[in-house]
Amino acid sequence: MRIYIAGSGAMGCRFGYQLQKSGEDVVLLDNWEDHIAAIQKNGLTIVGDEPDNVPMTIMKPTQAKDVADFIILFTKAMQLPSMLEDIKQIIGAHTKVLCLLNGLGHEDTIRKYIKEENILMGVTVWTAGLKGPGVAILQGKGTINMQSFDKNGAESSREIVDVMNKAGLNVIYDEDVLPSIWRKACVNGTMNSTCALCDCTIGEFFATEDALHTVRCIIHEFCEVGIASGIKLNEKEIVDYVMHVSEIAAPHYPSMHQDLVQNHRLTEIDFINGAVARRGKKLGIDTPYCQMITDLIHAKEHILKIAK
Amino acid sequence: MRIYIAGSGAMGCRFGYQLQKSGEDVVLLDNWEDHIAAIQKNGLTIVGDEPDNVPMTIMKPTQAKDVADFIILFTKAMQLPSMLEDIKQIIGAHTKVLCLLNGLGHEDTIRKYIKEENILMGVTVWTAGLKGPGVAILQGKGTINMQSFDKNGAESSREIVDVMNKAGLNVIYDEDVLPSIWRKACVNGTMNSTCALCDCTIGEFFATEDALHTVRCIIHEFCEVGIASGIKLNEKEIVDYVMHVSEIAAPHYPSMHQDLVQNHRLTEIDFINGAVARRGKKLGIDTPYCQMITDLIHAKEHILKIAK
Repeated sequence: MRIYIAGSGAMGCRFGYQLQKSGEDVVLLDNWEDHIAAIQKNGLTIVGDEPDNVPMTIMKPTQAKDVADFIILFTKAMQLPSMLEDIKQIIGAHTKVLCLLNGLGHEDTIRKYIKEENILMGVTVWTAGLKGPGVAILQGKGTINMQSFDKNGAESSREIVDVMNKAGLNVIYDEDVLPSIWRKACVNGTMNSTCALCDCTIGEFFATEDALHTVRCIIHEFCEVGIASGIKLNEKEIVDYVMHVSEIAAPHYPSMHQDLVQNHRLTEIDFINGAVARRGKKLGIDTPYCQMITDLIHAKEHILKIAK
Repeated sequence: MRIYIAGSGAMGCRFGYQLQKSGEDVVLLDNWEDHIAAIQKNGLTIVGDEPDNVPMTIMKPTQAKDVADFIILFTKAMQLPSMLEDIKQIIGAHTKVLCLLNGLGHEDTIRKYIKEENILMGVTVWTAGLKGPGVAILQGKGTINMQSFDKNGAESSREIVDVMNKAGLNVIYDEDVLPSIWRKACVNGTMNSTCALCDCTIGEFFATEDALHTVRCIIHEFCEVGIASGIKLNEKEIVDYVMHVSEIAAPHYPSMHQDLVQNHRLTEIDFINGAVARRGKKLGIDTPYCQMITDLIHAKEHILKIAK
């Protein structure tokens, strides 16, 4: 199966690596020059649980030519529209596209490029890191929950599920994946924006009752807006899940801290808390916590002279 | 007139200095050892518009012995209860007390120590800085608006007003001072907490439409809670005032930034946005913007290991 990984950062490298190992024809797509050069020169180097080095094909999205059987979207949220624009030439009538981006609302973008019956929405708890250009850190195990956008798509998605499971990616075809996507967005919406703003680890932020009040208010807004959108969310279960993740991830800085504070890059805030605030506005639901943290993160992007 | 300045930071030094210059018997009270030692050794040094050096009496609050005619309270908000406790011995039946602290709700604390007829509440636009222990930077001019807590107190406050005006402090006896106190609290509530959290100057924060949305939402909450408390506030006029101050003060870091970010001290947040959130809760008015920024500032105090 001809598979493209559209956005080959840490997670894209993991998935591409595992799929190629299991015999698929994989092409990594990315725009990071040093990363492309390193992999073209030295192959993809894997450190962590099972060190390895393998040749892999990597190129810029616009350089991809052959129509894809399967594309995994793994860009940063704000790069999704330009990525889809850049890979239009490899999207055919039967090309399946799996979206594994963090955040909410990507289906609205993807639908402009892909027929609904070919769209798969997913969420994963696999992790990965990059040690530098061309070097991925792969540790631990994970799973992927995914579902065809088309309600009758379980059958047509079977081949994709099989191919990914053959690669050890532990895919579950989920008859209702949206609650899992929103639950992960709650994790991001309570940890990413807050730790980026307060310049701290997840454990440092979750250490006070004051901070936990903010956490609970953010989750409440996600649930109000999600439930009003028809998504089956259990607020208490999500609070417990977020608290559980905050304990496991306590020593870490979330990705938005890496983006904003460490690397002075634009954040994904508009696709996390910002997406809930926007949808809340459409539905007539107040989301002051999500709106304010979105405003403050954008203010900080401007202060750091990152914003255009 | 025997006058004590209870809290002799930059502003306390300005007022004490001007009152002593005009012939009053002034004692500065403070707990900062280096500041006390410097003034005891070298006198109070004034730099800025009219450089000067004068001997002044300064001591710790607990060392004050003689009953006061007049006390000006000028501590940080959270030091007020311990200051009042430490100066109980100088509060007599006729001691007038003027509160010039930033923030809201101090009257509840002061009433425990001072008879209502002796309490004056005020707000000032005088400014001052400290160059170091014993050295005050005095530039520009200002005014003070004040009012007796007791509605019939204009007459009994006349002597205080005269003494302060003789010292050039430009006092206006205001028949309704609370709107001015709340208006200044709106300035602090939109600039102090936000710039402390985003680590930026006032101008940097007020530069984006995202930030201004937060500013307007905070002012709206102050006005809703203030008006419900019987205070005559005009929201549009306050927004204009805050925007005007933000332009004049654009290059500066507000005092809460100095406290939290520069000096790792506890902030006055519970007496600014936190006071509005608490009062809103009592009145059944939602104040998510004030509550969230209070939560986040407390979280940051904890992250910086300042909080107890």
